Amino acid sequence: MLKVIAQDFIRHDSLDLVRPLYAELVAKTRLEPACISYDLHVDQKDPGHFVFIETWPDRAALDAHCQTEHFRRLVPQIDRFQTQKGTFLLMDVFSSR
Amino acid sequence: MLKVIAQDFIRHDSLDLVRPLYAELVAKTRLEPACISYDLHVDQKDPGHFVFIETWPDRAALDAHCQTEHFRRLVPQIDRFQTQKGTFLLMDVFSSR
Repeated sequence: MLKVIAQDFIRHDSLDLVRPLYAELVAKTRLEPACISYDLHVDQKDPGHFVFIETWPDRAALDAHCQTEHFRRLVPQIDRFQTQKGTFLLMDVFSSR
Repeated sequence: MLKVIAQDFIRHDSLDLVRPLYAELVAKTRLEPACISYDLHVDQKDPGHFVFIETWPDRAALDAHCQTEHFRRLVPQIDRFQTQKGTFLLMDVFSSR
């Protein structure tokens, strides 16, 4: 199982324009058959700091997500309002062994 | 609902010492009555980069977690092997309104 944290940094004067784009991205992504979870959060200290926590079965499913119509259409629209480049972190579940 | 991302950076020569401490911390925290979820992950690019994704009902529950016997005993033991100070991020669930 693949866990992903993706972080976006959005201009505070553009939040009302970006929220509907995020809402559509979340709704459409959750309909992808391979999507296990896709949850969006906002930093309590910064309303322009958005944090996705995602669960995918594997890297192929994540790559397929990045090729969907909704991802390719919505992410560039969101990115126009970035204050800095987004980050992402790919993680495995911890094992004590 | 409160979502938390807590990140630790551990010396690569100490991972075998730290893993059992993390395993105990996860197991004991999941037994806390207020804990909704408490999952630990490892960065695919850095085996010393540990990432907790936590869900608590509210800030009071998180604060109570930080006062538990297991947290106060285990976290300082883990922190002895840090390469840099840990970070944490408190988040609200995204709302499109």
